Order: sequence, then C-alpha cells, then structure tokens
Amino acid sequence: MSAHPRLSLNQATIKHASLQEALDVTAAGGYQAIGLWREPVAEVGLAEASARLSDSGLRFTSLCRAGFFTMPEGPERRASIDDNRRAIEETATLAAAGAPGSTAVLVLVAGGLPVGSNDLVGARARVADALAELVPDAAAAGVQLSIEPLHPMYVSDRAVVSTLKQALDLAAPFAPETVGVEVDTFHVWWDPEVLDQVARAGREGRIASYQVCDWTTPLPADVLLARHYPGDGVIDFAAFTRAVEATGYDRDIEVELFNADIWATPYAEVVARTAASFDRAVAPYLAATNAPAPTAPAPTPAPAG
Amino acid sequence: MSAHPRLSLNQATIKHASLQEALDVTAAGGYQAIGLWREPVAEVGLAEASARLSDSGLRFTSLCRAGFFTMPEGPERRASIDDNRRAIEETATLAAAGAPGSTAVLVLVAGGLPVGSNDLVGARARVADALAELVPDAAAAGVQLSIEPLHPMYVSDRAVVSTLKQALDLAAPFAPETVGVEVDTFHVWWDPEVLDQVARAGREGRIASYQVCDWTTPLPADVLLARHYPGDGVIDFAAFTRAVEATGYDRDIEVELFNADIWATPYAEVVARTAASFDRAVAPYLAATNAPAPTAPAPTPAPAG
Repeated sequence: MSAHPRLSLNQATIKHASLQEALDVTAAGGYQAIGLWREPVAEVGLAEASARLSDSGLRFTSLCRAGFFTMPEGPERRASIDDNRRAIEETATLAAAGAPGSTAVLVLVAGGLPVGSNDLVGARARVADALAELVPDAAAAGVQLSIEPLHPMYVSDRAVVSTLKQALDLAAPFAPETVGVEVDTFHVWWDPEVLDQVARAGREGRIASYQVCDWTTPLPADVLLARHYPGDGVIDFAAFTRAVEATGYDRDIEVELFNADIWATPYAEVVARTAASFDRAVAPYLAATNAPAPTAPAPTPAPAG
Repeated sequence: MSAHPRLSLNQATIKHASLQEALDVTAAGGYQAIGLWREPVAEVGLAEASARLSDSGLRFTSLCRAGFFTMPEGPERRASIDDNRRAIEETATLAAAGAPGSTAVLVLVAGGLPVGSNDLVGARARVADALAELVPDAAAAGVQLSIEPLHPMYVSDRAVVSTLKQALDLAAPFAPETVGVEVDTFHVWWDPEVLDQVARAGREGRIASYQVCDWTTPLPADVLLARHYPGDGVIDFAAFTRAVEATGYDRDIEVELFNADIWATPYAEVVARTAASFDRAVAPYLAATNAPAPTAPAPTPAPAG
C-alpha cells in the first residue's frame, strides 16, 4: 500500500489503537509520518514510545496535546503549567526519535471558560500569560508550540481561541520557531478572513501544522465528533491547500478525525480510506515539487506498449 | 404583571402560540413590545394580523424573517427575491399598525451553502447582490433590513454571514436607515472582536436590533435549539449591554429563544420567566434614563420608618 509522501496520520483518527497498533497500521498503510497523542505514549512510557517510534521508521509530525491554561492563578494553574512543561519535553524526545524530517510541534488547545466564569476576555488574557511562561522552556527544548484555534462552537468548554487571527495575535510577541499556529480546516473554514490570515501566517513564518478534515451538517449529537474525511463535506480544500502551499509550507499534513463511525471501523480500513481521501481532495492542490500525480480517479489508460 | 419597558418578546420564544395567543400573553405579561414571525402572521392574513397587533397596544419591534438568498441566479433565486419583497411590505404594514415607537425592522438570515456547493466565497457574494437588489424596495417602504450574523456552527446550512464585522461590511454600501445589523448575543459573543464591532456598528448607525439570549454547553442534539434565558449561561451581558447602550441604542430589546424545553412550557410562564431573567441579567446595565431599578436580587432592606 502507499500513501501520499506528505500525509501524516494523526493517531486520534484511530483513537482506540494502542501506540504499537497505530505505528504498525500507519507504516503498513504506506504512510511516512504520524502525529501522536500523549495518552497512548504515556501507556508505554516515553522512552519505550520513542524506541518504538524510531523502529517504525515514521516521521513524527506533532504531539497532541497540551494547553488548557485559562484558569486563574492557583494550584490548578500551576499543575497545568507543569503538565505543559512535561509535554514540551515529550515533544522534543519524540521528534528526535522520529525519522529525519520530523517536526517538534506541540499542539496547544487553550481551554474554555473556567467553571462559573463569564469572563472571556480574562480567560483569553491568561492564555497569553501562559504562553509567556512556557516559551523559554519550549525555546530551550527546540519545540514549536502550536496554538490551535478551535471552532467557535467550542469556545465555552474547550478553547477560548477561536480564529486564526486571534492565534496569530497571541503568537506575535514570540519567535516563530517557538510559537506557531495550527491551520485545521475544520475549525477555521467558516471564517470570512481565513485565507488572508493563512497568508499572514505564512509571511510571519508561523504555520506549524496544516490539518485537513471536513465539515458537514447536520452536526452529530456530540459536536466534538463532527469531523469527516476530506472530500466528504463542504470545505473547499482546493482553495485552502493552495493558500497554505503558497506560503511555502512544506511540512507534512495531518488528517485528524474525531468521529464515532470512523472509530468503530477497522484501523487498516480507516488508514486506507484516509489516504484515498487525501489523494482525491488534497493532493491535487499541493505544490508540484512534492506532489505525485493523484492516484484516483485516473484517466483512461493508454493501451500498453 | 409588569416587564421592563424596553423588553420585547420575540414570538419564537413561544413558538407554538398563534398570533392572537402571542399578543394576548405578551400584553398580559406587562410587556410593551413584541417581535413577530411571518408564519403566524400569514395564518390570519396581513390585514387581520395588523388589526390585532393594533388592538393589542404593543409596539412592533421586528419581523422574522427573510433572506435565504445564497443560491445562484435562476427561478429559485427569483422566488426568494420576490418573497423578500413581500416581507418588506409586511414589515412596513405591521410597523405602522404597532404602537408609537414601533420599528420597521426586517431580519435577514443569509442562507447556507447551496446544496452540492463548496463555494463559500461565491455564496457570500450573492448575499451582497441580493441586498443591492432589495435596498430600493426597502428604502421606498421605509423598512430597515437587518443583516443577522449567525453563529459559525450554522454557516453551511443556514447563514454564510458569521460575524458582526462581516455583516457591517455587507451593509456598508447602503444607507444605515435601510440596511442595519442584528446584534444577537448568542450568535456573536464568542468573537474576539465583537465589542469593537458593536462600537463600530454604533458609529455607523447600524444597530437595527439588540437581542439577548444565553449560551451554555453541552449543546443539545439539535444545535438550533441551544438558546437560553439571559443569565442561564456564560455570556457576559454586563459587557455586551453596556457596549450596545454606549452607542446610543435606544430601541427595544428582544428575547428570542429556540429551546425545546421552553417551547414545552406554558406561554404565560415563559413570558414571566423571560421578563424576570431580563430584569436580572440585562436591565441593570441599561442606560439609566430608561432602566428602572432591577427588581431582583434586592439588597437587605432597611427597616421601615
């Protein structure tokens, strides 16, 4: 089996797989890269996870996830900052263990409103404070923190960072190699300013990761599980992918799907379907130097020899 | 019973009431104003609806709704434009029938992506085209079209206008007395730029209507029905209401709730609860010239005499 050389499987797409299962099925699917989650890494321990990643021959594209630091000062906030520091170290270790071309990217989800609070402005200010506190650690470890704007439907309970512009404004005080942004189509596609902000992110050198994932309605009862294979919804991947590529972005591209139906499908089938959807919906719009011809749909072949 | 003098009940809050029931229960609840929906008006006919509204003694604050004009040129689009023209006439007629202080505001919901399309940019451009086509009719009728940005979770299936900034940009080519914007807290509270855009809307004279409605999570299975009484969620009504009042906005303020539990509650109870929630969550932040002292919670009273 083969997959596009720049396609990375985010492990959440096969959520119930162990680390070893995820590495095996991703490599067997012809992928060259994988994005990991902290929980399955912690199950085997960081050293063992790094060894297994190294054995897989896969590039490491990002670690999901840290952040969740909107609470006011106190023991809970200190615990969060400490946890973010551990995640920075994990990211550096895993990136070093991955194949050449791995990227030491740590995805940050801001966190929602603290329980009982309606102070969205204050919660957002505390995100900026947390970044300032973590940046020296990230810089020392050679890790790029990647601020992920989440769809505004998650603002109260998950992420007070809602737009690419807001993420870039939060990143602005820091060096781009230390603080970047996620561009996840699912979260930002609706934004009237998003293509301008993608161009800005490129100019500022801050696109840490491009993630492709589709949107369709009606939304499922649990809106966290609303993510679809690229091409199965209404997002214009041609426009998005061209905009990201035009910035010079040349890293791997992750597919990260939270979807109960996909999670109930055999891993190998998900891995194959993800590769096929990427080939159809995304690959045709990648810069020519990196993109092989799309594998499907193929034109009618000429008669052999 | 009494209600705040600037509180208007949007009829959708008691969705299953007929026009007459809505007028009766709203007046009996001590309200001075009501916002109507086209369907219950159509049930009795416009002339009869106008007569009943006039008899109620209530001010008319807005008609919901028209719009839904994102489709490309063709018979379906012509039918939509014609329907919008009828809605303009209905708005003018109802506003004239309402008590003095009524406002001839027609709420416009843009519509989502046409079926099978992923061209969000094109759909948005067609909203601008539709406005240009309808503005002469609205101006002639003395009606203010009010562009309502809807929460980005509705962008694909309901409204491609997602932010107050976008709505104001769409309104910009036209006179403010003919094209304004809705400021509905539920839809725009998450936006990092919203208070700046409220101030801009005020400077540009475009706040057609301020609607108050709360947000809480988890969202219900049908995200259309996620709206709550002011104060029952996480929106900062102090900040919002002060920002709107600071612009000089002096019109009535609607409460419009789409919520299955509220719709299953007796109308009079909903009307009373809406008034109480408005008194607690919104009224304390209204400009002093219009706002009576909040009725609850009261401080410990001093001993009489």
